[in-house]
Amino acid sequence: MSDDSITMAMTVAEIHNISKACLIVNGCDEANANAIATTVSMAERDGATSHGLFRIPGYVQSMRSGKVNGKANPKVHIITPAVIRVDGDGGYTPLALHKGIPLLAKAAKAIGIASMTIINTYHFAALWPETEAIADYDLAGLACTAYKPVVVPAGAKEALFGTNPLSFSWPRPGKTPMVYDMATAAKSLGDLYIAVRDGQTVPLGTGLDADGNPTTDPRKITDGGVILPFGGYKGSAICMMVELLSAGVVGENFSFEAAMTDNSDGGPARGGEFLIAISPELIAGAGWQTHSEKFFDRLTRIEGAYLPGQRRHMNRLSDAPRQVNAALVETIKELSQG
Amino acid sequence: MSDDSITMAMTVAEIHNISKACLIVNGCDEANANAIATTVSMAERDGATSHGLFRIPGYVQSMRSGKVNGKANPKVHIITPAVIRVDGDGGYTPLALHKGIPLLAKAAKAIGIASMTIINTYHFAALWPETEAIADYDLAGLACTAYKPVVVPAGAKEALFGTNPLSFSWPRPGKTPMVYDMATAAKSLGDLYIAVRDGQTVPLGTGLDADGNPTTDPRKITDGGVILPFGGYKGSAICMMVELLSAGVVGENFSFEAAMTDNSDGGPARGGEFLIAISPELIAGAGWQTHSEKFFDRLTRIEGAYLPGQRRHMNRLSDAPRQVNAALVETIKELSQG
Repeated sequence: MSDDSITMAMTVAEIHNISKACLIVNGCDEANANAIATTVSMAERDGATSHGLFRIPGYVQSMRSGKVNGKANPKVHIITPAVIRVDGDGGYTPLALHKGIPLLAKAAKAIGIASMTIINTYHFAALWPETEAIADYDLAGLACTAYKPVVVPAGAKEALFGTNPLSFSWPRPGKTPMVYDMATAAKSLGDLYIAVRDGQTVPLGTGLDADGNPTTDPRKITDGGVILPFGGYKGSAICMMVELLSAGVVGENFSFEAAMTDNSDGGPARGGEFLIAISPELIAGAGWQTHSEKFFDRLTRIEGAYLPGQRRHMNRLSDAPRQVNAALVETIKELSQG
Repeated sequence: MSDDSITMAMTVAEIHNISKACLIVNGCDEANANAIATTVSMAERDGATSHGLFRIPGYVQSMRSGKVNGKANPKVHIITPAVIRVDGDGGYTPLALHKGIPLLAKAAKAIGIASMTIINTYHFAALWPETEAIADYDLAGLACTAYKPVVVPAGAKEALFGTNPLSFSWPRPGKTPMVYDMATAAKSLGDLYIAVRDGQTVPLGTGLDADGNPTTDPRKITDGGVILPFGGYKGSAICMMVELLSAGVVGENFSFEAAMTDNSDGGPARGGEFLIAISPELIAGAGWQTHSEKFFDRLTRIEGAYLPGQRRHMNRLSDAPRQVNAALVETIKELSQG
């Protein structure tokens, strides 16, 4: 992890451009580089730096190791009027989402609820770009994906689950949608690495060391230890649901299978993603928006309560250049030399 | 709450019969009494006593108070090939589920994914009967419902959410399905009342007292205090998703609205339920079962890990009479005098 203390100013467009250029030099075609650079620059725009430029070296490494196809041509298949399947062609997820989500949204708007599965893909990004895209069609969205085993089932000391993020969005026409995106692990791997870098401890209940003992030292969790699910046995049940949806329903690798086939180049393994889009207009009927706004109004009036995703959306409003990690930009420039 | 220490033996059929008789005397018609008695006797069969005979006095009270229509005739509407809506006619949920789930399953098997919403209903039961019924059709099932505000959003001290249970099931043809059903509150109201009755403390993080301070005394939580969501801000996000699905998508009361319209007879308020059924056969394709069984095989080989719902399914295997609370049976007999 590089030193975050020295930053430099870049516009969102500049962030997009250096990302795209670096990806093309390292094996992406125009369409894939564009889709990934959009995802990366949106993350920096929103202040979600852990999914911004920070991910570019990982994308590059995964092409250089021969694992991921930077020129993948994802194919969208309409299986039924409610079921879309995208074959990612061994590439990154952003282009698969870019092609599939308009069809998922069309299906959900026509029939009320629809699912989209992505197979044969490598998911390096957050999940909120896709659930937010679904919400932009005035649909509720749900997305989840598995990872390699780093999280133990509640009560156990051996990892089986991935950090297994789950994202949910709710449309608020005329306003920014409510969107959250969370690891179903007590902490994501990224947050643990940041705690290691910054010499911080983590709360008990975050993970176990290599001997299966509770620890507050993040290094003991990342070096041979395991992460606990969030929220004890209930969070473990949610984490398991993510495995069953994003591998069992999708027909792709469970976390334990992903680990067996991966080349361990440091990036995510091949896997699947599961998405649902739901039309409140079609199911609840007219007036759904007024109704749900009453709920948000009530929530935001409660002292101490907050709507998930609002910080990202506030950050987004600024037209100013973003402060990005200068050392990271230097690394990306070096990687862009090929 | 009555004393659990004195029990008596009753067969599952006897439990069904006294439940049904009591419900009919107090205002249910044959169809509703049968559906509720089936739900209640299944709970006792599985050892899930908090949703068994224990609920009968609440059903009776809700008819005597004039809140719930014991002779409701739920109507099933097919909105689209993927969307089923059941109007519960102001009655209890079991008959609405009994009528709707075969059509939900038929839709999901035909088109891959389908939703069912129930409006104008009173949900006194657990959610696993319906998700297990979905799994019995070789479909994955999800169900959730809201309640009256007793749970605070993370960071706040004022209740907005219900205990908002979420249930998920996964089909295992030839075996008992994987089914879980959990409050998205740190503890359900039922568990808190049991802790009060038994003079036990609860862990910090379960709830706040009337002044908004953390407490380990369950009585301070149930008497004017509030319950916390499970798993901190992440559990709070799941709890909020349940509100948005089971009220926002359904077009029924949010928890805060349910409280405003309820007559406070002690039972659940009018609300909605949201269900999804998903076909792994249609989405993942052939081989889905072998694939997911590999996952369960891996999970159950891990020391300390367990499959949710297995205890209920083990209890079910016994043909012996069940031990039920003798004082409760006496109460039900008294209520059956009308």
